[in-house]
Amino acid sequence: MHWISAEHDLVHENEHRAEELRARFDACGVRAINIMSAPGSGKTSLLAETLPRLPASIRAGVVEGDVRGALDAERLKPYGVPVWSITTGDQCHLDARQVTGALSDQALASLDLLLVENVGNLVCPASFSVGEHARVVLLSVAEGDDKPEKYPLMFERADLLVITKVDLLPHLDFSVDHAVNAARRLRAGLPALQLSCKTGLGLNEWMAWTLGVAGRPAER
Amino acid sequence: MHWISAEHDLVHENEHRAEELRARFDACGVRAINIMSAPGSGKTSLLAETLPRLPASIRAGVVEGDVRGALDAERLKPYGVPVWSITTGDQCHLDARQVTGALSDQALASLDLLLVENVGNLVCPASFSVGEHARVVLLSVAEGDDKPEKYPLMFERADLLVITKVDLLPHLDFSVDHAVNAARRLRAGLPALQLSCKTGLGLNEWMAWTLGVAGRPAER
Repeated sequence: MHWISAEHDLVHENEHRAEELRARFDACGVRAINIMSAPGSGKTSLLAETLPRLPASIRAGVVEGDVRGALDAERLKPYGVPVWSITTGDQCHLDARQVTGALSDQALASLDLLLVENVGNLVCPASFSVGEHARVVLLSVAEGDDKPEKYPLMFERADLLVITKVDLLPHLDFSVDHAVNAARRLRAGLPALQLSCKTGLGLNEWMAWTLGVAGRPAER
Repeated sequence: MHWISAEHDLVHENEHRAEELRARFDACGVRAINIMSAPGSGKTSLLAETLPRLPASIRAGVVEGDVRGALDAERLKPYGVPVWSITTGDQCHLDARQVTGALSDQALASLDLLLVENVGNLVCPASFSVGEHARVVLLSVAEGDDKPEKYPLMFERADLLVITKVDLLPHLDFSVDHAVNAARRLRAGLPALQLSCKTGLGLNEWMAWTLGVAGRPAER
């Protein structure tokens, strides 16, 4: 058995499940965002900044994907929104089957916005939709500005690029222009923003985008 | 088809190929090191510091694994050692079949030390041996000190932990002790060193370890 053909079968099967899941989201009026990045780019930190900034009228929930353990889910408990922890058991990405299994109809009926934190990985999560309406890729400035060229599928399929940890820029050889331009060669016009959870830079812009996906752009 | 069972078949098949490849390495007197980490932890930068520091008596070669393109292989060309570039075609790790296919008997006969830079990923490369004699995992301080707990298999199976980009420590909330202790709970006694390619810290220690794996500890 060859990896690539095996993965193609799995990707194909996942597409059907993701379409069914998206139909369930739509039927319940839930908008879903798939948040992806390499390990340690700041996905959980961004969620911890996002949840308290959401207007009370938006009922949010989080799906936390981890290969093992539930450290990230624990980190988000203080924010008072439902968190579904999915442990993938060494699978390197979330898939639609797992997210479908985690979310009952009752759970979906209680939500307006679902934030899905995928497993930290710049490769396979790009191939496995979880029924999301929008995809975000985070790229930390510590990872280097060559990542869009090296992991193109993730950037080709993104709806937003968030350059994270920009407070570290003075200490690194990272060109924001190089990274953004490389990503836009893969996806023309890809929106991009610079963010630092430490300084707060970019959080307003991020919240405006998120509320736009949630269908509430006027509330920002 | 279920991802996990499909991956188990692939891991099992890979084990056989990896044993065959290791036997070929041994027959040719080649020692192989599998270098793994998340994207952007500094694998290529470390190789760029390593190659010029190797004694002339060690004939080194590099295998560069990338999902697409050959940016890293290009970066290493100036160092005058053979570089075999393997493009995995969106597979999130190198496998023994790919490395076997890249290295002829003639190539192996010309080498003493093979440095394999795996695809940037903290998950699947841990499950797919490429016939190596030793495994290194790099963890950049920008990624956070919780990574061993979140991606345990990679650290359980490592022979050396290299904490990279430690020049950034003053700007980050990263506890080296926390990361090293977490890794050692997964693999008792795991050797660990702190490294910065920017300042040169840790490079002597890294070279001593590498020469030890190469069977030339006296030359350091």
